[in-house]
Amino acid sequence: MELLLPNPANSTPLTTLGFLDRAATTYGDSPSIVYNNVSYTWLQTHCRCLQMASSLTSLGIQRGQVVSVVAPNVPSMYELQFSVPMSGAVLNNINTRLDAHTLSILLQHSESKLVFVDHHSSSLVLEAISLFPRNTKHPQLILIDDEMVSSGSKSTSSTSHFLDHYEGILEDGITSCPKGVSLSHRAIFIKTMDALVDWSVPNQPVYLWTLPIFHANGWSFPWGMAAVGGTNICHRKVDPSQIYRLIKQHKVTHMCGAPVVLNMLSNSPDLETLDHHVQILTAGSPPPAPVLARTESIGFVVSHGYGLTETGGIVVSCAWKQKWNKLPLTERARLKSRQGVNTVGLTEADVLDPKTGEPVKRDGKTVGEVVLRGGSLTLGYLKDTEGTSKCMRENGWFYTGDVGVIHPDGYLEIKDRSKDIIISGGENISSPEVESVLYSYPAVNEAAVVAKPDKFWGETPCAFVSLKKNGELTQKPSENEIIQYCRDRLPHYMVPKTMVFENELPKTSTGKVQKFILRRIAKAMSLVGVP
Amino acid sequence: MELLLPNPANSTPLTTLGFLDRAATTYGDSPSIVYNNVSYTWLQTHCRCLQMASSLTSLGIQRGQVVSVVAPNVPSMYELQFSVPMSGAVLNNINTRLDAHTLSILLQHSESKLVFVDHHSSSLVLEAISLFPRNTKHPQLILIDDEMVSSGSKSTSSTSHFLDHYEGILEDGITSCPKGVSLSHRAIFIKTMDALVDWSVPNQPVYLWTLPIFHANGWSFPWGMAAVGGTNICHRKVDPSQIYRLIKQHKVTHMCGAPVVLNMLSNSPDLETLDHHVQILTAGSPPPAPVLARTESIGFVVSHGYGLTETGGIVVSCAWKQKWNKLPLTERARLKSRQGVNTVGLTEADVLDPKTGEPVKRDGKTVGEVVLRGGSLTLGYLKDTEGTSKCMRENGWFYTGDVGVIHPDGYLEIKDRSKDIIISGGENISSPEVESVLYSYPAVNEAAVVAKPDKFWGETPCAFVSLKKNGELTQKPSENEIIQYCRDRLPHYMVPKTMVFENELPKTSTGKVQKFILRRIAKAMSLVGVP
Repeated sequence: MELLLPNPANSTPLTTLGFLDRAATTYGDSPSIVYNNVSYTWLQTHCRCLQMASSLTSLGIQRGQVVSVVAPNVPSMYELQFSVPMSGAVLNNINTRLDAHTLSILLQHSESKLVFVDHHSSSLVLEAISLFPRNTKHPQLILIDDEMVSSGSKSTSSTSHFLDHYEGILEDGITSCPKGVSLSHRAIFIKTMDALVDWSVPNQPVYLWTLPIFHANGWSFPWGMAAVGGTNICHRKVDPSQIYRLIKQHKVTHMCGAPVVLNMLSNSPDLETLDHHVQILTAGSPPPAPVLARTESIGFVVSHGYGLTETGGIVVSCAWKQKWNKLPLTERARLKSRQGVNTVGLTEADVLDPKTGEPVKRDGKTVGEVVLRGGSLTLGYLKDTEGTSKCMRENGWFYTGDVGVIHPDGYLEIKDRSKDIIISGGENISSPEVESVLYSYPAVNEAAVVAKPDKFWGETPCAFVSLKKNGELTQKPSENEIIQYCRDRLPHYMVPKTMVFENELPKTSTGKVQKFILRRIAKAMSLVGVP
Repeated sequence: MELLLPNPANSTPLTTLGFLDRAATTYGDSPSIVYNNVSYTWLQTHCRCLQMASSLTSLGIQRGQVVSVVAPNVPSMYELQFSVPMSGAVLNNINTRLDAHTLSILLQHSESKLVFVDHHSSSLVLEAISLFPRNTKHPQLILIDDEMVSSGSKSTSSTSHFLDHYEGILEDGITSCPKGVSLSHRAIFIKTMDALVDWSVPNQPVYLWTLPIFHANGWSFPWGMAAVGGTNICHRKVDPSQIYRLIKQHKVTHMCGAPVVLNMLSNSPDLETLDHHVQILTAGSPPPAPVLARTESIGFVVSHGYGLTETGGIVVSCAWKQKWNKLPLTERARLKSRQGVNTVGLTEADVLDPKTGEPVKRDGKTVGEVVLRGGSLTLGYLKDTEGTSKCMRENGWFYTGDVGVIHPDGYLEIKDRSKDIIISGGENISSPEVESVLYSYPAVNEAAVVAKPDKFWGETPCAFVSLKKNGELTQKPSENEIIQYCRDRLPHYMVPKTMVFENELPKTSTGKVQKFILRRIAKAMSLVGVP
């Protein structure tokens, strides 16, 4: 057969930005965003995003430059998911719970030219910028009010089109050290379409923003909601009584959140049986079966998946079989707590034996490393060739660092998230980062931080330290002194909740701390109720 | 920002073939296909497709070679949508209603190496092959039984994997002359995901195959059903009493069909109000508002869209607004009879002024040519550089040849399908093709065929002819004689239903027949009841 080559009409770039233009036509007078007493239509959201994209250009932002955002799920945060890439700039969503030091590193590493800052985070960002080395150029700051974006600099409201220029979208995930996970428009497009198909999202849903948008781009739903003309219910804080109120008030149909959110909702004193079904999509850590069961008994319909910042959202999901509905609740919950199968938009997922590199036996027992391939995966880490080539291998697999098994029915189950990561309340905590602070404490000899299972947070950081001996130590520090020291240097959620003093940490013959032993100890402590 | 290049893990080809493997894992023991008393599971369908792909290779079919299929919606037809591209070959779905002459041209033009033939079409295909020029190599034929594929040649049942080699998918559409519309795997992937999102298809629907799979690849739903683990209800013939029986028996949730199918269902003596809602997606010609209203009153939920073989399926759809539900039935039907807005998977749709090339005024009145751009569009026509460049223009638009308007609310409405096309019962009839047969009749001087509106078929071909004068004509032919002549040379549905003799056809100053005048006459005839 002759070779027919792509041409301009069929090889337009894959991007989600056009979804907004379409939503303005299709759902123009339907609500796009509701936040407290403010409500916008899709026509207004489209117009506001065009104006902001135009303003960015007026402010001198050029194609490919990085614009960062430090904000919770307020309307401007949603709009910036469109307007920043529309302007041609690269969007960098930053976790609002970081400390000034980490934030400073991220802003410098990404070479951000501009930072949009929620007013609650302004002092944090100012502090982060004060930590920039002398003679370094600082990014411009724009304060986000609750209801509008006001700029200290000149702000134009031209609605000229900036839709024909765009670059990649950058998301700062935190793994072993702050990393700039770069996602292309193609990846975001594939992920967004895939997420809508996988979760069977209908037209015009009412979507409650319980998942932070800064978290893996809100699993692609900022763009997904524009695709289906949904209503985005924005709010600042994940609080059970507020969630129940908003569900009732706006007849919420869909929401996302880490298992800790499910736990919160099903243990809340404000708990009330829902008068309509609410679809809730959870990921981030394996949801305990009892939590799943409790959440579903209230009226939530839980879907469960797995993904990383590097995959643009959920790429493995526990595709539900109708026949499972006939099983008892606990059995259903056990099946649903598995991560599942690749979504249709992901080419392939597998679990490889770390020694042989071959797929593990599908017996639900043999562990290996979870690997993925597909169009929604990251291009790699910004300015980190080594980190990129370490996980994006020549054999065409992305290595997640997560440990899992494959059950005889082909469903994948994560047995251990990436060894160095602790997931507390849905937030990734890099244990080396906490360890480096502990190591900086004068009396500390060795430090290792592992996850301790926690009923509420999923996991909390548990620190094992050995102290210096001999004349080096004038006075033995208390547990509280070290914790206070960490509090001064780390965001609150990263501070170890438990401190264990050891004479020496268990190590391998090559001197590597045997964290698996420490994890067992931490697990045992949680079982006997040590806080 | 540094340039991060695509790598093997994130740039795996976009293809729908993996959907089948995933369906075998996810929905392995759920029904994939039901046909009369035969039923398969997704595990079986996956296995059968792998076997057939393997057999194709054993038969000597090589990557990039064309394999044609002439079959109605039987299980093998569904399976071949996967197994042919799985083998690396190019799939060519052919309309079962073609005549031997046209079929022969298509088989020769596509250089088919192999033809799968339904037993009802075997004599037709044999006749088509008998029309091949002498000394031309004929394709191999494989007869499709109702329940299984049996091959005259050796057939192996190896299940080795052929999933890593594939080429484009070729669909023979009929526009002005038989054309090989080439669609890439990427286009099919984008279209399939898009179709699922646009129609909000949930998991595990029950899909009744009323739309022929050979028709624009069944609007991508062969692959879509594998993506969502649906049940494909196959049957041979679109017959209202059978459709109603199958809907009841299998609790059908989704089906597609041209407006003539809606007309058939809503006028059938077997009509009965449905005991559950059935989603029906229609396209191919504008559905008359009364037909829409009648169909919905039975319990069907009609969605309406627009697409061409060249677009891989529906790319413009009448996205429904919840507020329209409050309008009276006739007003709802009027709004729904419009084609609508671009689907999220299509980059853009517009209507351009043929003179200036600029977008027309959005007033619902100013007509222009419908143009499209997006990832699901064809690569072009096989061995037809001129035809390809005529519609795939340098300015990045695909020119459909269809005439439309854009309403003030941004919704597109087709005012006239491609001038040379008559759509009868959902089948495209090329008027030049019919005209060329008429012109071959000795007594005919001029011939022009246009669409005549028809309550049942939507349109029927109406021929206007002028006869030769002077000594050239020994005897004036009758209407019936010419129609019989056409019957011998054209498939039945392409034969003119009405013949009009004129002294001379109306022509422009440059000698072009003014078809718009003939269309007006044909329309007037239909209004006064001329058959």
